[in-house]
Amino acid sequence: MEAPEPIYDIAHLGHVELLTDKPQESLDFFVKVFGLTESGRDGDSVYLRAYDDYEFHTLKLTAAGTTGMRHVGYRAASPQALWRRVAAIEAMGLGMGWSEGDLGHGAAYQFHDPDGHLFEIYYDTRRYEPPAEERPALKNQAQRWHGRGVATRRLDHLNLLAADVGAIRDFMPMALGSRVTEQIVLDTGKVAGCWFTVNNKSYDIAYTGDHTGSSGRFHHVTYVVDQREHVLQAADIFLENGVFIETGPHKHAIQQTFFLYVYEPAGNRVEIANAGARLILAPDWRTITWTEAERGKGQAWGLETVESFHSHGTPTAEYG
Amino acid sequence: MEAPEPIYDIAHLGHVELLTDKPQESLDFFVKVFGLTESGRDGDSVYLRAYDDYEFHTLKLTAAGTTGMRHVGYRAASPQALWRRVAAIEAMGLGMGWSEGDLGHGAAYQFHDPDGHLFEIYYDTRRYEPPAEERPALKNQAQRWHGRGVATRRLDHLNLLAADVGAIRDFMPMALGSRVTEQIVLDTGKVAGCWFTVNNKSYDIAYTGDHTGSSGRFHHVTYVVDQREHVLQAADIFLENGVFIETGPHKHAIQQTFFLYVYEPAGNRVEIANAGARLILAPDWRTITWTEAERGKGQAWGLETVESFHSHGTPTAEYG
Amino acid sequence: MEAPEPIYDIAHLGHVELLTDKPQESLDFFVKVFGLTESGRDGDSVYLRAYDDYEFHTLKLTAAGTTGMRHVGYRAASPQALWRRVAAIEAMGLGMGWSEGDLGHGAAYQFHDPDGHLFEIYYDTRRYEPPAEERPALKNQAQRWHGRGVATRRLDHLNLLAADVGAIRDFMPMALGSRVTEQIVLDTGKVAGCWFTVNNKSYDIAYTGDHTGSSGRFHHVTYVVDQREHVLQAADIFLENGVFIETGPHKHAIQQTFFLYVYEPAGNRVEIANAGARLILAPDWRTITWTEAERGKGQAWGLETVESFHSHGTPTAEYG
Amino acid sequence: MEAPEPIYDIAHLGHVELLTDKPQESLDFFVKVFGLTESGRDGDSVYLRAYDDYEFHTLKLTAAGTTGMRHVGYRAASPQALWRRVAAIEAMGLGMGWSEGDLGHGAAYQFHDPDGHLFEIYYDTRRYEPPAEERPALKNQAQRWHGRGVATRRLDHLNLLAADVGAIRDFMPMALGSRVTEQIVLDTGKVAGCWFTVNNKSYDIAYTGDHTGSSGRFHHVTYVVDQREHVLQAADIFLENGVFIETGPHKHAIQQTFFLYVYEPAGNRVEIANAGARLILAPDWRTITWTEAERGKGQAWGLETVESFHSHGTPTAEYG
Repeated sequence: MEAPEPIYDIAHLGHVELLTDKPQESLDFFVKVFGLTESGRDGDSVYLRAYDDYEFHTLKLTAAGTTGMRHVGYRAASPQALWRRVAAIEAMGLGMGWSEGDLGHGAAYQFHDPDGHLFEIYYDTRRYEPPAEERPALKNQAQRWHGRGVATRRLDHLNLLAADVGAIRDFMPMALGSRVTEQIVLDTGKVAGCWFTVNNKSYDIAYTGDHTGSSGRFHHVTYVVDQREHVLQAADIFLENGVFIETGPHKHAIQQTFFLYVYEPAGNRVEIANAGARLILAPDWRTITWTEAERGKGQAWGLETVESFHSHGTPTAEYG
Repeated sequence: MEAPEPIYDIAHLGHVELLTDKPQESLDFFVKVFGLTESGRDGDSVYLRAYDDYEFHTLKLTAAGTTGMRHVGYRAASPQALWRRVAAIEAMGLGMGWSEGDLGHGAAYQFHDPDGHLFEIYYDTRRYEPPAEERPALKNQAQRWHGRGVATRRLDHLNLLAADVGAIRDFMPMALGSRVTEQIVLDTGKVAGCWFTVNNKSYDIAYTGDHTGSSGRFHHVTYVVDQREHVLQAADIFLENGVFIETGPHKHAIQQTFFLYVYEPAGNRVEIANAGARLILAPDWRTITWTEAERGKGQAWGLETVESFHSHGTPTAEYG
Repeated sequence: MEAPEPIYDIAHLGHVELLTDKPQESLDFFVKVFGLTESGRDGDSVYLRAYDDYEFHTLKLTAAGTTGMRHVGYRAASPQALWRRVAAIEAMGLGMGWSEGDLGHGAAYQFHDPDGHLFEIYYDTRRYEPPAEERPALKNQAQRWHGRGVATRRLDHLNLLAADVGAIRDFMPMALGSRVTEQIVLDTGKVAGCWFTVNNKSYDIAYTGDHTGSSGRFHHVTYVVDQREHVLQAADIFLENGVFIETGPHKHAIQQTFFLYVYEPAGNRVEIANAGARLILAPDWRTITWTEAERGKGQAWGLETVESFHSHGTPTAEYG
Repeated sequence: MEAPEPIYDIAHLGHVELLTDKPQESLDFFVKVFGLTESGRDGDSVYLRAYDDYEFHTLKLTAAGTTGMRHVGYRAASPQALWRRVAAIEAMGLGMGWSEGDLGHGAAYQFHDPDGHLFEIYYDTRRYEPPAEERPALKNQAQRWHGRGVATRRLDHLNLLAADVGAIRDFMPMALGSRVTEQIVLDTGKVAGCWFTVNNKSYDIAYTGDHTGSSGRFHHVTYVVDQREHVLQAADIFLENGVFIETGPHKHAIQQTFFLYVYEPAGNRVEIANAGARLILAPDWRTITWTEAERGKGQAWGLETVESFHSHGTPTAEYG
């Protein structure tokens, strides 16, 4: 009997909606320091994008009485592929139904992951059409590169917290057709962390354990820059702008990502990263499993993981 | 009526077989200067790989009375996907049949592109199993990184010459399910260059015009490094080792690749490149078409394209 | 008999006064694209500085009916050292006398080089005192790093044109105590280029031949960034802002500088460079002499020097 | 009354002699991993150099029953300058007299710093004359760049431990004419760290407090690479070669050095660093004083200093 074929129904991570209880400070951070561009506003939300994101937005920043993530969107590879995923999710009994869409995309099918995070999948999207002052010098780029602040290229991935990461590991391949590229399995057999991808990126979403009894919490969202040196420059930009740097720049052993974590003013963790030329090209990639002992060695070059990286998520306990 | 779905049958470019009439000099170049590792030998061929290529080899270097490329291999996403491609190619009347395979992979189906280059597609492959001294410090990497010479991460793409690039533009999407990400269309309507991808990389093969009346010729093969700074270091390595640098480092306007072109001792052109974090994530990417006038502006930062880049291919006219 | 001791009377290149006949465009370029900060205005002049220049200004941009350089200033190591240089210059019969100083420094002694360029040397200077919004996060830095545009660290060197570079080679060591670190000597014995330093930098001023019959002309002024990658980013900034890139990024064989040359709106050539960790530490450095044949090889990685680099200076012939 | 003139008698740090009780392992590390070149042997010592060090050697590695530093050498700017320094040191009553010199230099005058470290100053030196296979492609470089291992450009600085750093702060300006560029002064008034330079580098020697009651101990020696990215690559080289990384890569707040600290096999700490384009050009640089509170903030981007950085020196307590 042949193995099932890999699933390519979901094309990529599309956008993340973050909540902030300091909307102006958060917006200033994302535009002036992080270097995103505002592409629209609607109600309590501002739509933001990195310069080479091809869609209208990749970050929806919404004023709220709390922090954390309201929803994450993935774009399907085709209308047919979208229907296949909807059918699969409904067969799992987890479907919520269709939303009308948003400023940046058309109808989207919604569902929850086992930890209660809200997901949506959609195909119809709104491409970013740059106004004159945002037209790039090179036509194969979505928008002009301003070099303002960190000036990231595109949305890369997000990391969510879950009480039962093992349940997520079972869920994501069925729901989105994701592959598990790497994972941490403790000596007890418990899955402590899991990294998923739907395409050639080494991951577009990661889950790590939430030990607080809360559910649906957010760990971080990541945008990428082209070079490791740009991550180092980002650190200087954060330093000069008084942004709290939690840890980094350093290299993760897991996924080998060159990372830098900061908190935006409302407390949501944001990462600047670079993966170099690393891609998952093998269609039959074998999941890399890190043991408790291996993970205990710290980051790639020996940095000990800071305690807050294991404990801080949004919303924090005060909100929960 | 809905648009046809994107095809994901071919996972990635697998390997290139290069011919050399200076086998020892070429091998020394690829191992000591370029930094590849030998993984095997068979007859007149040496099998080579970059440190993070997951397969046994990505470059097969074969001693011959000439230069140029003997064949290129692509790996399918699954056995079923391989059969679908075979059926499609046979339906086009271009199939040649199955070869037994090679030191690095199993049975492969062979065919020619319209310019006479030999292609093969396969699914069964041989993963690289590093001997003790080649085991990496991080288990998510295929092989130890030695930092010897240019020390590229992986095979990236190749560029072939064709008398009729327009015919190739029609052929590749049908044969491999490739997408055309960028192209140059002259004022006459003639396609002067075309860039194709089967996955999220912005291209895995490019074709540019051959004006010599020859067919089946080779322009260059490219390996990538993680950072643009590594391309600059490569230039210094080539300088210290007396390797002929044809052009670069500089940034292409097309595809925005940061490039450096050299000739290996037998005259085959080899590129070191870096693409930063640029990927083609849109499943419905719209082909970027460069006009003759746009291409006339030179490279991204204004460098004029050197004449030999348009004229030099292998085998050269003397061999042809 | 012992060799004369090295002279350390002049501490460093202090500032350059550039003329522009497009003052607003030039100022916009230097502030918004090049990333300098305005520290003052006086009459037709705007005083500009890079973020880690410790003095009030390093570039004085003066509106005029022409382009080119009006004067260059060097700072002496001490009041006593200044007097020693004044005595030496007066002994050569080339002294012009004292000026009252400027917004950025005190009394300065003026003289001409043999090609008619105006120099001044001074000791009393005005340190930059950052206003609150310009205070750096790290107190060992002169000013906040904004990351705005190219955002260079400091003034590095300038290049002047001279009809008789050999005469300059004799003059500078006597006038400023400079050392000749590198030079180009043609087969005829004529000096085609000469690089001088007063400190551990590999050069602070260079002269190359002016073949137009003009005198006192300017070739370029250079500011440095910390990393070669920042030179590459500068190229993208210039590309997005429509700035004319003359040549680069590439590496000079002479001095090994990683360079990028552009024209500011009025036509004065400006360079962004990086020298890595290269310094002249030997107190008895032996001048490197490049022959005509060696220079004919082009830049370090083989780039041919563009024709305009040999012919374009400011003011241009139209002004001359 | 005028201020005393700056002293330029000492040109630069020349070499460091390190002791190792694992001579073969240490030598393998310095040549194969660190990338130095052996230029000679004499008795128990091997002479090593970075590719752009102009002198015969900058590191003398000596087999011994212990670790740490045996002596440090500085090169004078001229024979006259050397005599002035000898006179100054003798006037301080600290002179030891002349040694005959070494494989790499001529007669040297020796003395101890107040903590008992052995220093020597010399003028006559032996320039490195590369054999054919070590000749660089560019003649303004001392030796071929191999790109082997970390492949640093040149010796940069060293850091010694002293029980009374304040005494050193008084001593070095008098002995060598050094300037104090930065220092840490605790709330008690005690000097906890002090950085000195004799030229335009921001420091060539640093002293930090030894709290163990030992004297004459060594903290680290530093070689520089041209780019921060090369420091990151060095970390990967150390990772692949099983070298213990103590801390970094990260950016010091003090001096803004981008650092990476490892232990060579015998336990001596070695640093790879990059300073970007930062230089001390001001002849009247004002010492930067960091308070206890400022130092308590950790490194520039917030990394907490690891405990061993304050406690580990060589020889260790076991030897002392």
